[in-house]
Amino acid sequence: MKEEIIYHIDQNVLELNNPVMIVGLPGVGHVGKLVADHLTEALDAQKVAEVYSEHFPPQVMVKEDSTVELVGNRLYLARTEKTDLLILAGDSQSNDPAGHYKLCEIYLDFASQFKVKRIFTLGGYPTGVMTDENYVIGAVNNADLIEELKEKGIQFNPSEPPGGIVGASGLILSFAKFRNIDAACLMGTTTGYIADPKSSKVLLGKLCGILDIEVNMDALDEKIKDMDQIVEKIKDSVSGEESDEYYESPATDEDLVYFG
Amino acid sequence: MKEEIIYHIDQNVLELNNPVMIVGLPGVGHVGKLVADHLTEALDAQKVAEVYSEHFPPQVMVKEDSTVELVGNRLYLARTEKTDLLILAGDSQSNDPAGHYKLCEIYLDFASQFKVKRIFTLGGYPTGVMTDENYVIGAVNNADLIEELKEKGIQFNPSEPPGGIVGASGLILSFAKFRNIDAACLMGTTTGYIADPKSSKVLLGKLCGILDIEVNMDALDEKIKDMDQIVEKIKDSVSGEESDEYYESPATDEDLVYFG
Amino acid sequence: MKEEIIYHIDQNVLELNNPVMIVGLPGVGHVGKLVADHLTEALDAQKVAEVYSEHFPPQVMVKEDSTVELVGNRLYLARTEKTDLLILAGDSQSNDPAGHYKLCEIYLDFASQFKVKRIFTLGGYPTGVMTDENYVIGAVNNADLIEELKEKGIQFNPSEPPGGIVGASGLILSFAKFRNIDAACLMGTTTGYIADPKSSKVLLGKLCGILDIEVNMDALDEKIKDMDQIVEKIKDSVSGEESDEYYESPATDEDLVYFG
Amino acid sequence: MKEEIIYHIDQNVLELNNPVMIVGLPGVGHVGKLVADHLTEALDAQKVAEVYSEHFPPQVMVKEDSTVELVGNRLYLARTEKTDLLILAGDSQSNDPAGHYKLCEIYLDFASQFKVKRIFTLGGYPTGVMTDENYVIGAVNNADLIEELKEKGIQFNPSEPPGGIVGASGLILSFAKFRNIDAACLMGTTTGYIADPKSSKVLLGKLCGILDIEVNMDALDEKIKDMDQIVEKIKDSVSGEESDEYYESPATDEDLVYFG
Repeated sequence: MKEEIIYHIDQNVLELNNPVMIVGLPGVGHVGKLVADHLTEALDAQKVAEVYSEHFPPQVMVKEDSTVELVGNRLYLARTEKTDLLILAGDSQSNDPAGHYKLCEIYLDFASQFKVKRIFTLGGYPTGVMTDENYVIGAVNNADLIEELKEKGIQFNPSEPPGGIVGASGLILSFAKFRNIDAACLMGTTTGYIADPKSSKVLLGKLCGILDIEVNMDALDEKIKDMDQIVEKIKDSVSGEESDEYYESPATDEDLVYFG
Repeated sequence: MKEEIIYHIDQNVLELNNPVMIVGLPGVGHVGKLVADHLTEALDAQKVAEVYSEHFPPQVMVKEDSTVELVGNRLYLARTEKTDLLILAGDSQSNDPAGHYKLCEIYLDFASQFKVKRIFTLGGYPTGVMTDENYVIGAVNNADLIEELKEKGIQFNPSEPPGGIVGASGLILSFAKFRNIDAACLMGTTTGYIADPKSSKVLLGKLCGILDIEVNMDALDEKIKDMDQIVEKIKDSVSGEESDEYYESPATDEDLVYFG
Repeated sequence: MKEEIIYHIDQNVLELNNPVMIVGLPGVGHVGKLVADHLTEALDAQKVAEVYSEHFPPQVMVKEDSTVELVGNRLYLARTEKTDLLILAGDSQSNDPAGHYKLCEIYLDFASQFKVKRIFTLGGYPTGVMTDENYVIGAVNNADLIEELKEKGIQFNPSEPPGGIVGASGLILSFAKFRNIDAACLMGTTTGYIADPKSSKVLLGKLCGILDIEVNMDALDEKIKDMDQIVEKIKDSVSGEESDEYYESPATDEDLVYFG
Repeated sequence: MKEEIIYHIDQNVLELNNPVMIVGLPGVGHVGKLVADHLTEALDAQKVAEVYSEHFPPQVMVKEDSTVELVGNRLYLARTEKTDLLILAGDSQSNDPAGHYKLCEIYLDFASQFKVKRIFTLGGYPTGVMTDENYVIGAVNNADLIEELKEKGIQFNPSEPPGGIVGASGLILSFAKFRNIDAACLMGTTTGYIADPKSSKVLLGKLCGILDIEVNMDALDEKIKDMDQIVEKIKDSVSGEESDEYYESPATDEDLVYFG
């Protein structure tokens, strides 16, 4: 870690077939992160690059076997029939504003090196209200993408989100434009208060339609059930009907530990 | 974005006629920003330079057509009869203190390159009270400017503002002095709590007098009406006379989204 | 201090015998710091290196003789029968996130230079509850260490601590792995609210077992007694039974001045 | 301002006679700043160097004639019979922790260039209580200084201040030691809540004794009277006996605008 940012790329990766990059980092409702993490597991993707940086929090995560892993982001490759997916996933976004600029430049270097044709950044769109209806809002770096994405069920509303898009999901779109790579940000609506695997499932559904792939969603369904139970508990607790087994939280999955 | 700051200058801009730089960036009451944005539109100015930097927030704005634009500042050129105006406008000032120094140096590089004779930085002067009377306070980097500006209706009060001038509006004055360019900061009085297009109109009026130009103010008048309605609503709401149509906000103009 | 980080190494230190590095910097409950400071005094260790950096707080400490000492970290050497201990102790961790990365790299440079075979970073594990039972949780950078440490009474729980390990105690483990040096983080359970010499004593006991050394604990016992009195006072104060002599605090030891 | 720090030294300053540096920057109760500013005026000192930096706040001050001055620090020279005083005064200390390190290095460069024999940094020592008795606490970078300073009325208490000395007043002592220049920090006791010209006068009195100089204190006495009136008003206001003329503040002196 003598450098501000270090990254390693697996030099054995051969030519990719119609490569598309998917970016799902922590953010609003962890909607994007849950999709990227799920995709990585469900498609049994292999790690092809990793990034560590002093712009990430100075922290290690402890894995199940009590060994540590430095906080960073990792790029995984999953080969599907019609496209090779490069999935960027990780524990954290940049810790400081300037780091977002520096790290996103690295992510675009990956895209250039692997000759990526298109990038989809995934995130959550906070609505502030609980609802059973989830949809996906889009923003693009090239207006030509809009019609195609609308056909796949992505909504486009003028100047939405009103406050713009903060962090890697937004910057990558502009940086990709500088390199003439088409990119879209797909945002699943969510309350903005808690991790939202339900929104992630809707988002993943749309993404599969766009990419023309099929992905087993069992693990995501499991997370939705866990989260529903947590929400139920919270509601009970608030309404005073808290049951005795309150402290036996059904979810130990740290992916669901999110407070917006 | 490999560099800390990148900027592009339109190399096709020919010699300018008596060039004057106007700086109106976000700040107190968005008074300066509203003037610069209005001038750019009303005079149909063309973009001649743009600045992006890791000192800006790591964010993109979404435009009406759902395409994104990286947060940055932009320099526009409007040719008028007696003077060519270079208008610096943008979404943000520096995100961090040191960035103000670095970015203002770039703005002065623009001024030097275009052989600017004089710079006016525009801002708001927070008074903390609501009043129907708006005036414009000045500060200069060369005492010789004071008499001339007084004649055009700018007020000069000893050591005002008492806390100095924070951000680009102030730094540019001192940096211009290092380069022997005359510069004045013109500050419209405002409450400091909300966006204040009324103060902007008064400030723009004085600026037109100084520059000897005429500018159509219709769009600014529209913003004043919108803002008056918003203020009325807020007053009603506070006094408990909130009407039913409260949530149909008349203004969707994001330039008015400002809270001091 | 022209450089971002400066450090000096005592060039007269001869070859070390089975060198082990112990890292005990300020952190949760000062559990690690109290152990490192105690070891340094109890083993009469000599200073062999010092580190100053703009990543530390811009501050000097005033010593008992009214002379000042710049905030920094220091490496001490204590030779024992079976192993030579290099103890890293200090007033502060990095003041900013990126500094942790830079400083830990320096600490690993020490480890490399002195051909350290194994590193133990010491810290506290906040439980949020007061209890008389203290134990020590471990995390490692090499799974091969776990069995050996379990035999010495260190507990390993899957994915604990759930939030990972923040600061030098964690980063050093990952950085050591990059250099193929085995390292473990040993964390004494503590409330997380106040300095906890009792937890430090339990942690030091385990560490002595691992290193096969004996250390006089009198000074640490003294601190435990002081802290017990402080806690007693606080309890009395909270319960309204505050006695008159409240303000004659028994502890003037600044090592105990800690609020989590 | 292309550089992180820029400074200019008056190259016409001839050899100095027994040069001593006095540092009085903003800090607790502005005790040190008030002394340095007073000394500069009372001794009619001439400016011999100035420092600007992105580590200062991005701000200009407006002078009485409505011209602006970039926030920075300035070094003044006052020649007295037995010693030439180099007085470092300014509007601000570093805005960020690392900047303190960088700026203090520049101040020591001044000291080296002018062959300074001794440095006195001046500050306030917050006691939290209002009292009529002011005294001066010392800390040194060389124990040999203590006896001499005690004879001049400076008090030395073991390990005081307990939290060390933050900012330039402390760092300069340690940095001076690296360059073998004797230095002491003299701290006037003060409440820590408001600007305290009374403490400054006591501190200046001791400093004059140490330097064997005489300084007219009229302007400082004036400030003390102003401050007494302000405090009186505040007391009245708190006790509900606020008089009508409350808003005619007797002091317009911005040096007294300080809230701890």
